[in-house]
Amino acid sequence: MDNSNATNTLKPADIFSFDFVKNVLRGSGQVMFQNNIWTGLFFIVGIFVGAYMSNQPLVAYGAIVSVIVSTATGYFLPLSKDDGNSGLWGFNGILVGCAFFTFIGNTPFTWTALILCAMLTTWVRTAFNNVLAPYNVNSLTFPFVFMTWIFLFSAREMHNLPGDYLSKPSLIVNLGPFHEMGALEFVKHIFQGVSQVFLINNWITGVLFVIGLLISNKWAGIWALIGSTISLSLAIMFETAETSINDGLYGFSATLTGIAIGMTFFQPNWRSAIWAVLAVVTTVFIQAAMNAFLLPYGIPSLTAPFCIATWLFWLPQFNFDKPSTATKTN
Amino acid sequence: MDNSNATNTLKPADIFSFDFVKNVLRGSGQVMFQNNIWTGLFFIVGIFVGAYMSNQPLVAYGAIVSVIVSTATGYFLPLSKDDGNSGLWGFNGILVGCAFFTFIGNTPFTWTALILCAMLTTWVRTAFNNVLAPYNVNSLTFPFVFMTWIFLFSAREMHNLPGDYLSKPSLIVNLGPFHEMGALEFVKHIFQGVSQVFLINNWITGVLFVIGLLISNKWAGIWALIGSTISLSLAIMFETAETSINDGLYGFSATLTGIAIGMTFFQPNWRSAIWAVLAVVTTVFIQAAMNAFLLPYGIPSLTAPFCIATWLFWLPQFNFDKPSTATKTN
Amino acid sequence: MDNSNATNTLKPADIFSFDFVKNVLRGSGQVMFQNNIWTGLFFIVGIFVGAYMSNQPLVAYGAIVSVIVSTATGYFLPLSKDDGNSGLWGFNGILVGCAFFTFIGNTPFTWTALILCAMLTTWVRTAFNNVLAPYNVNSLTFPFVFMTWIFLFSAREMHNLPGDYLSKPSLIVNLGPFHEMGALEFVKHIFQGVSQVFLINNWITGVLFVIGLLISNKWAGIWALIGSTISLSLAIMFETAETSINDGLYGFSATLTGIAIGMTFFQPNWRSAIWAVLAVVTTVFIQAAMNAFLLPYGIPSLTAPFCIATWLFWLPQFNFDKPSTATKTN
Repeated sequence: MDNSNATNTLKPADIFSFDFVKNVLRGSGQVMFQNNIWTGLFFIVGIFVGAYMSNQPLVAYGAIVSVIVSTATGYFLPLSKDDGNSGLWGFNGILVGCAFFTFIGNTPFTWTALILCAMLTTWVRTAFNNVLAPYNVNSLTFPFVFMTWIFLFSAREMHNLPGDYLSKPSLIVNLGPFHEMGALEFVKHIFQGVSQVFLINNWITGVLFVIGLLISNKWAGIWALIGSTISLSLAIMFETAETSINDGLYGFSATLTGIAIGMTFFQPNWRSAIWAVLAVVTTVFIQAAMNAFLLPYGIPSLTAPFCIATWLFWLPQFNFDKPSTATKTN
Repeated sequence: MDNSNATNTLKPADIFSFDFVKNVLRGSGQVMFQNNIWTGLFFIVGIFVGAYMSNQPLVAYGAIVSVIVSTATGYFLPLSKDDGNSGLWGFNGILVGCAFFTFIGNTPFTWTALILCAMLTTWVRTAFNNVLAPYNVNSLTFPFVFMTWIFLFSAREMHNLPGDYLSKPSLIVNLGPFHEMGALEFVKHIFQGVSQVFLINNWITGVLFVIGLLISNKWAGIWALIGSTISLSLAIMFETAETSINDGLYGFSATLTGIAIGMTFFQPNWRSAIWAVLAVVTTVFIQAAMNAFLLPYGIPSLTAPFCIATWLFWLPQFNFDKPSTATKTN
Repeated sequence: MDNSNATNTLKPADIFSFDFVKNVLRGSGQVMFQNNIWTGLFFIVGIFVGAYMSNQPLVAYGAIVSVIVSTATGYFLPLSKDDGNSGLWGFNGILVGCAFFTFIGNTPFTWTALILCAMLTTWVRTAFNNVLAPYNVNSLTFPFVFMTWIFLFSAREMHNLPGDYLSKPSLIVNLGPFHEMGALEFVKHIFQGVSQVFLINNWITGVLFVIGLLISNKWAGIWALIGSTISLSLAIMFETAETSINDGLYGFSATLTGIAIGMTFFQPNWRSAIWAVLAVVTTVFIQAAMNAFLLPYGIPSLTAPFCIATWLFWLPQFNFDKPSTATKTN
C-alpha cells in the first residue's frame, strides 16, 4: 500500500521552507509526469499567459491557491516524504483550481469549496492508490477528476456554488456543421490541445508547455505533440463536434496518454511506440463516449478519458523491453 | 475473504429460536453500527411511530418482513456464525423494506420483489466484502443501495412494479426559493436528518433513534447529532433545494458518516474528530452531486453518499491513535 | 495475474495454420462457455441464417471479421498460449462484430472502428482479468460490453460513425400496451431469447444455438433453455415493455447467466441449480434496471446484466459441492 511504510513524513513546520516552493513547482510539473521545477514553472507561466489573454485571471489564481493547499495538506498527513518531495501532492490540486473557475462563478463559497476539494485530492490519491496498488498501476489524475466532478455536479444543486459556465444539460448532441481546416490552423490546434491539459485554450500556452516538457525530457515533449496531433487528426476524420475540435478538447487527454504510455510507464522503443499510438487512438473514442455520457448533465469529462485509456493499456502489464521474454513478472 | 473460514455456520433449524429474534434486532441496530438489541428495538419502534404518523404503515411492515428475510437467508448459506450473531445479515435488509414502500406502490409483485431483494443483500454483502477485503474496508450499506437501485430502476420498466412515489425524471434541477429557518425548526430538522437514515421524515423518530444510540454508546449518539447538524448547516449555507433541506434529506448520509468515521472505524480523539468533521462536510457535496446525477432518472441516492464519503476517508488507512508512528501497518 | 507466466505464447506466423481456424471457432463457442469447434461452427451458421433472414448480412460479416481480428491480435501479444488454444481471444471479438452493424451504419470508418474495437477486447480482457484475479472470478463478456459501449456512445458524437439504429434518447419509458401471448409464440420467444446472445432475433437461429450447445454438453443446452424460459416468464409476469419481450431482449443475458452459474462455475447439482435459478431471476431485474439507466442515451445494455448478475452470485465463492464443509477455500 501507498503509505504502509510512511514513517518518514513531512511536518507542518516544513511548509515554511524553500523546499515547499520547490515541491509546489514539482507538483505543477507532475501533471505531465515531470518531476522538474523548471517544467513546473513553465507550466505556471503558461497558465497565467493563457488565463490573462482570455480574460479569466481567476483560473490562474485558483490554480496557485489549490496547488499550494493540496501540497501543504500532505505536510499534515502521515504520508511518505518521498512522495511530497516528488511533487505528487500537487498535480491533482493544481487542476482543481483550473477547473473550478473555468466552470463555476466566483463566490466566497466557491473559494471554500475549492480549498476543500484541493485538500481532498491529496488523501483521495492515497485512497485510490491503495485500491490500485495490487495491480501495479496508480490513480493518475483520477483524484482530481472524481473530486472535481463531485463539486461540479454539486454546483447544479446549490445556489451559492453557481455552475454559470457549465453546458446546458441535453439529450441530443448538436454536432454542428463541419468545415475544412487550414494547415496553420491545424498546427495551432495541436498546441491548443496541449494547453487544454490545464483547461487553457491558447496555442501560446501550448508552446510554453511543450518547451517546459522538452527542458525535462525530449520524449515527453515529443509524445505530447504526437498525442495531440493524432487525436486532432482522428477527431477531424471521424467528424466530431466542430466546437470541441476548435477548442482543443480532443487533445488534452490524448496528450497525457501519449506521455504516459509513450515514455513514462514503458521504455521508449518501437514496440512501446506502437502501443502508445494505439492508446492515443483509443483515448479519442473514450473522449467522445464520455462527452455523450455526460451530455444530460452538461458536465465536462475532465481528464477521465486519459485515465481510462491509460489503465486499459497499462493493466495488462505487458513488457515491451525484452522481446525474448513474454511478460514482466510482477 | 469474508467467508473463507466459515466452517461454523448457522443452520435453517436455528431460525426457530429466540436467538433469531435477537439477531434480527441486532440487524436493526447495525444500520448505525450498534450490535445491541435494545438499540435495534428503539430503531424499530421509531420506524413504526414515523410510518404510522405519516400514514405509511407499509414502510414499517416492509421493514419487519425484509429484516426477517435477510437475516433468515444467512441461516441457509455457508456464512460465518459470528456475522449472524452480530446482526450483520439484517442491516441491509431492513433498509430494503423501508425503501420499497417509500417509492413503489403496493402490489403482490412488489412484495415478491422485496423478498428477493432482501435475500440478495445477504450474499451480495459477502460478494462486496470479498472485493473490499484486501483494502481493510467493508461494503457498509452498499449492498442495500446497489440492490435497491436495481429494483427502483426496474420499477421504471415494469407495469407491475409501479414506481408511483419516485420523482419525475428531469434534466433541470428546480432549486426553488430559499427561506430563513427558525431555531426550533433547525433543531427539529437535525432530528429529521437522523430519522431519514431509515427513510422516515419525523423528528420524534429521530429522537427515538438518538436515544437508541445513546443506550449503546454515547459517542454514537453524539456523532449522529454532529453529522446531522453540520450537514444541515452546510446545506443551508450553500443554499441547496429547500424541499431536500426540509425533508432532512441532507442529514441521513452525514449522520452515518459521522458515526462511521467519528467512533466506529477510528478511536474517538481530537485527531479523528477533525477527520470525521471533514468526512461529514464531504458527504454533503457527494449528496448534492448524486442528487444531480440521478435527476434524469428520478431515483434517490439512498445511503450511497455515506458509503462513498466513508470509503474516501477510510481507504487511506491513516492511524490517528499514536501520533508518534505515521500509519497503521496493514 | 492472467499473463504473469506467459512465457509460452503464440507467434504471428502461427496465424497461417489450420489451428488458427480452430481457435476462431472455439472463440465463437466460448461466447456460451463451450471450448468446442463444432459448437462454434453451429453458432456461426446460426448467425448467418439469422442475419440473412432479417436482411442484415453485415452483422454476420462483421462477426467473422471481428472474431478473426481479435483472435489474431492475441498472436502478437505476450499472452498465454493456453488461452489462445481455448478460444478465449475470440468470444468478446465476435460479439463486437454482431453489435456494430446492429446499431451503427455502414461506412469505411465503421469498419476501422470495428477492427480497433475487436483488437482492444483481447488485451482489455487481460486488463480486466488481472483486476478480478484476486477474487477468483473473471471478466466474462465485459471487455466486449465496455469497449462496444465506448464506440456506441462515440457514435453519438461523430458524423462518420452514424448511430443510425440506436434508440432515440429519452427520459420517459414508453412501456406500451400489454397483450397475452399464445403457447407457440411463447416457445418461439424462448429460442429468440437464446438467439439474442449474438444479437440475432430469430427463433431458428436459437434452435441452431441450442443444438450447438447440446453437442458440447447437455447441461449447457438445458441451462440455456431454463434461463431463457424463466426470464421470459418473469418479463411477462411483471409486464415489462412488450417490444422488448417480443424481440427476446429479456432472454439473452439470462441464458448466459443460466449456463454460467448452472453448469460452468458450479458443479451441476440441486444446490447449484437453486443458486442458478436465483441468478437468472436476478438477471431479469438487472436487465430492466440497465434499460432504464441507459434510456437517456438510447444505448443498449448488451450483456452487462449477465456479467453483473453472474459476479453477484460468483463472488461470494460459495461451494455447493460438499454440503459438509461450508465454503471453498480459496
